[in-house]
Amino acid sequence: MFSSSSSLASAILLLLLLLLTSPVSAVWPAPQSFSKGNTALYLHQNIKVTYNGGFVRWSPLPVCPSPAPGSAGTCFIPDFEIMEEYRHKYGDTKTNFTFQTQLPYTYGYVPADSFSSREIVQAGVSRALGSILSSEFVPWMLYKRNKLSEFEPPLHGGHHGRDAEGAEGGRKWLTTLEIFQKTKDTKNTFKPLAGEVDESYNLTISKDGAAKLTAVSSVGVLRGLETFVQLFYRHSGGAFWYTPYAPVDIKDWARFPHRGILMDTARNWFDVKDILRTIDAMTWNKLNRLHVHVTDSQSWPLEIRSMPEVAKQGAYRPDLTYKPGDIEMIQKYGLHRGVQVYFEIDMPGHIGSVALSHPELIVAYNEQPYWWWCAEPPCGAFKLNDNRVDKFLDKLWDDLLPRVAPYTAYFHTGGDELNANDSMLDEGIRSNKSEVLQPLLQKFIDKQHARIRKAGLTPMTWEEIPVDWNVTIGKDVVVQSWLGGDSVKDLTAKGHKVIDSNYNYLYLDCGRGQWINMDNGVAFETFFPFPDWCDPYKNWRLIYTYDPTTNLTVEQAKLVLGGEVAVWAETIDPVTFDSIVWPRASAAGEVWWSGNVDPATGQNRSQLEVTPRLAEMRERMVARGVRSSPVQMIFCTQATPEECSYPM
Amino acid sequence: MFSSSSSLASAILLLLLLLLTSPVSAVWPAPQSFSKGNTALYLHQNIKVTYNGGFVRWSPLPVCPSPAPGSAGTCFIPDFEIMEEYRHKYGDTKTNFTFQTQLPYTYGYVPADSFSSREIVQAGVSRALGSILSSEFVPWMLYKRNKLSEFEPPLHGGHHGRDAEGAEGGRKWLTTLEIFQKTKDTKNTFKPLAGEVDESYNLTISKDGAAKLTAVSSVGVLRGLETFVQLFYRHSGGAFWYTPYAPVDIKDWARFPHRGILMDTARNWFDVKDILRTIDAMTWNKLNRLHVHVTDSQSWPLEIRSMPEVAKQGAYRPDLTYKPGDIEMIQKYGLHRGVQVYFEIDMPGHIGSVALSHPELIVAYNEQPYWWWCAEPPCGAFKLNDNRVDKFLDKLWDDLLPRVAPYTAYFHTGGDELNANDSMLDEGIRSNKSEVLQPLLQKFIDKQHARIRKAGLTPMTWEEIPVDWNVTIGKDVVVQSWLGGDSVKDLTAKGHKVIDSNYNYLYLDCGRGQWINMDNGVAFETFFPFPDWCDPYKNWRLIYTYDPTTNLTVEQAKLVLGGEVAVWAETIDPVTFDSIVWPRASAAGEVWWSGNVDPATGQNRSQLEVTPRLAEMRERMVARGVRSSPVQMIFCTQATPEECSYPM
Repeated sequence: MFSSSSSLASAILLLLLLLLTSPVSAVWPAPQSFSKGNTALYLHQNIKVTYNGGFVRWSPLPVCPSPAPGSAGTCFIPDFEIMEEYRHKYGDTKTNFTFQTQLPYTYGYVPADSFSSREIVQAGVSRALGSILSSEFVPWMLYKRNKLSEFEPPLHGGHHGRDAEGAEGGRKWLTTLEIFQKTKDTKNTFKPLAGEVDESYNLTISKDGAAKLTAVSSVGVLRGLETFVQLFYRHSGGAFWYTPYAPVDIKDWARFPHRGILMDTARNWFDVKDILRTIDAMTWNKLNRLHVHVTDSQSWPLEIRSMPEVAKQGAYRPDLTYKPGDIEMIQKYGLHRGVQVYFEIDMPGHIGSVALSHPELIVAYNEQPYWWWCAEPPCGAFKLNDNRVDKFLDKLWDDLLPRVAPYTAYFHTGGDELNANDSMLDEGIRSNKSEVLQPLLQKFIDKQHARIRKAGLTPMTWEEIPVDWNVTIGKDVVVQSWLGGDSVKDLTAKGHKVIDSNYNYLYLDCGRGQWINMDNGVAFETFFPFPDWCDPYKNWRLIYTYDPTTNLTVEQAKLVLGGEVAVWAETIDPVTFDSIVWPRASAAGEVWWSGNVDPATGQNRSQLEVTPRLAEMRERMVARGVRSSPVQMIFCTQATPEECSYPM
Repeated sequence: MFSSSSSLASAILLLLLLLLTSPVSAVWPAPQSFSKGNTALYLHQNIKVTYNGGFVRWSPLPVCPSPAPGSAGTCFIPDFEIMEEYRHKYGDTKTNFTFQTQLPYTYGYVPADSFSSREIVQAGVSRALGSILSSEFVPWMLYKRNKLSEFEPPLHGGHHGRDAEGAEGGRKWLTTLEIFQKTKDTKNTFKPLAGEVDESYNLTISKDGAAKLTAVSSVGVLRGLETFVQLFYRHSGGAFWYTPYAPVDIKDWARFPHRGILMDTARNWFDVKDILRTIDAMTWNKLNRLHVHVTDSQSWPLEIRSMPEVAKQGAYRPDLTYKPGDIEMIQKYGLHRGVQVYFEIDMPGHIGSVALSHPELIVAYNEQPYWWWCAEPPCGAFKLNDNRVDKFLDKLWDDLLPRVAPYTAYFHTGGDELNANDSMLDEGIRSNKSEVLQPLLQKFIDKQHARIRKAGLTPMTWEEIPVDWNVTIGKDVVVQSWLGGDSVKDLTAKGHKVIDSNYNYLYLDCGRGQWINMDNGVAFETFFPFPDWCDPYKNWRLIYTYDPTTNLTVEQAKLVLGGEVAVWAETIDPVTFDSIVWPRASAAGEVWWSGNVDPATGQNRSQLEVTPRLAEMRERMVARGVRSSPVQMIFCTQATPEECSYPM
């Protein structure tokens, strides 16, 4: 017989081992610290929600009553004011909202122009609880074949009616969700520079049904609410939703402040709803920056009120444009979800589409052979020493920057892949020598960055500007790196703040083949079997291994603000965007949020632990209306991770 | 001044040059012979359609009145009898059909058990004209930016009302579609062996509005109707549909009689509607064989009435099964569209899921480490010398074969990747020596093939059975090859009839990364960066270069019946299936239908000619409800092919 103290010690040890070895279920990205039990609690619309002690009025019903995928229906909309453009665009009324798709953003009403922390939290609670209480996500595919009943708590009693709080019918209910925000939000909470908002939160759920969420900022509250959502499943026995994991104790915070997706809306057209859906999926993955590469040489879909001709000629179709109201709506939609939407107008290269309305400003538009003038057709760059370009940009910035500045801290002026040869065609320059071009480019960049700053924004640039062109940029400027190798190391060594988009890991468009035509003959022979330039495909297991701070000093690592996956759209459009991005952006997202190292052991997380969670997250994303690719076949999601592993 | 005869000669020469050099527009796969003009003809529901002189009653209205993608609506259904299961499953009534998806198969009613050539043609006409007259496909993305009006014929007059035939409002109308079938269909037309049905057709459309379609068989009529559909566009000015290409003269026939897709419904679950949608898309691409790899070691979704336990235990979820009515419906749905649906029950390997209900029949089920026993988890093979297996298979064939035999000529018994080690675990064998196993396997295959033949079907097998195992198979047996290299050459040299699925070109699942978990340590190090076994991704340009008869003698080439792209489903499910398959299966489909060589020049078709057609076909597929991947960004589809080519 054991002594009681050693038996207690053994029990504690066993418990610790269980906590360490059992896969962290149900939440993606993995929280920094997570313990859970095995008591089931049901969620009911009668749950009392408070925010700093005040009652939170939230949508009391499933927002969209279980629409079949692809079906139409009418969704309940809480009685907040709905943005005029949004209502107009999607044809809703104040209390009813007819939606045409299966996307959950349809209940993502956007409140009026002014917003408060309280409104943001209130809307977040509505979305979170509405999402749980309308979920069809029965996780049969995540547990042993035909054994879901071993995972699900018993239902007892009937399946109908509005059960009272408490244990009626044998079910234990979650009765309260208390939300505490410890500090007041500031203006910067809603448009933060990297590091200006604290996204941390603590979430506990007691066995007897009390949930408590504390955070420093309203953004932290939103992060915690999303974690809360991911603890719940729908019961196979009917319209009941439960978490099997009480008691829950989560302490969580973000590793990097900048965790983003670059969406290329210039090479293919993406509708506003594709962007909003992407923002939704980002929030599920705790990503917080949507970088919209909004124009390029291929098209200019961005309406500029003072120069309507630019989009009218530059868009792929005159009506396929982002109107000022669209831009504002997208940004506010993100703001309400803790996702900062910022824009890039790439220059002085990658700007050919301006030639369609202002040919006098552009050199080498669609010049052939393209590879002599740029990286892909059509070519086109601003003239570097022409005051007509200055005037154009003055007008552009004056129109655009005041519109976006209320909702973001950043503006990206591009700067990648400028080809010196272009200036050979510039009647004002006629040279491709860097000693000629460098001073002109320095002046050009200085001017644009000054304009960005003047609008209250912080400039961002691609790395070629400071590195390849040796342009001196301000200390404030954030440099986005994509070239891989030692780029991040070199940039941080020079003291630059860096966003990492290493193409060897984070370019999600790669590895599906050439989009350029190869006529029969030399081109055909040279490029057969037609891999693209950044082949192979970046699979999620590879992405997950990659940490941008590897081999950096502590000081250098501090300059890495985070990363972005890039989704260049040469062969991606709204039809395939979701399946290209998800769940691979989820993999990157976890590395940026809590890392690919298990904080408990200090070792890399094993795929045996990661895969089941990612597979679960994938199923959640599909259930919530985003067409993520599968992680594994159902045999594997139903088996132990070891059964689908390569044993060595 | 030219003499009139030389000017005539010049004109003819110019015309010939134009015919040879202008890209064949609008039709995929390219017809064997195609000439077209530039007179526009509009299509109206008043068009008179005849079939061998008799009036064809077809659905007089757009079948589904322009549903927005993802919306619901009510579709008109012609008054044919609708299959009971289909009606039951999708909740339609005899005259109205409420559909829940955007898929065009919803107007693909299936007539009653008996069918006639006339019914098939009548339904085909309804689908074809209904498809045109409900199409939203305005090809703005296929023509110069903002210049669609240069492509579209003028509308003149109003946009409303039921215009009479003829030239009212300045529009020329297509007034008649005369269909002639030159020979009577036989039983084999509806379930042909390779070569038993003539799919050829001729289609002409005169400038004054008379269309004429002649074919040898009803299947040829269906092929011609699909070509007819692809000549039409919707006008941007309203609900008008036109072809700009009259006069049209098409002579067309199939190069290979077997042009298929292998769909793996065992590794992931695919709903009946996913299969029907795939059949639809196949018909658009003139593919004619759907090979359903219906069971495997991962799951057994096929209901067997006499042994319900097999699917009940073997399916991923007890209700995720193909009921006898589903199987019949799928086959009839295909039959009505000239697509033969046939099934594979892979054995004696790849059959582990039987162990879930009949463990006594299977060796090595889910044995680890899997690579010792099979190619991927879970392992599992039939015992090769056990009369309980015989009894099981007797019962299986007795139940299944009579059900599928009315609608197909083939049954595939699998036979790939049998691992000799499995029989080490077989208490009746205890050996992995081929001299022990080969005679047992010979007997096993002989028995199964005899049963297949007895049911009136022709056996198919994977190549390992005759090649690796040296099993003697009947002259009738069709061998499916996947191993690439000289496999097709060697098999045809031995006189085997071959279906080619060379994994280096035709495995559409390849190149997106490992699905197997690699734990930290040796496995991780060994497999980093985690490419899958058949990396890289097979892009469409590569697929298009591949002809299975290359380097074969004429006699050998005759034995190549055609090919199948394979879509193994380890990381593919209904969410991503369409974008994985299309348009890559389209590329293979053209090679199999009319070849990758231009018949006019004898040279390989150039990507400059192929890409715009494939891009158009992709847009058509999306417009018709199939989520095909894009071919190129809109800049390229709006530009000349040369503007998006690599000039050398």
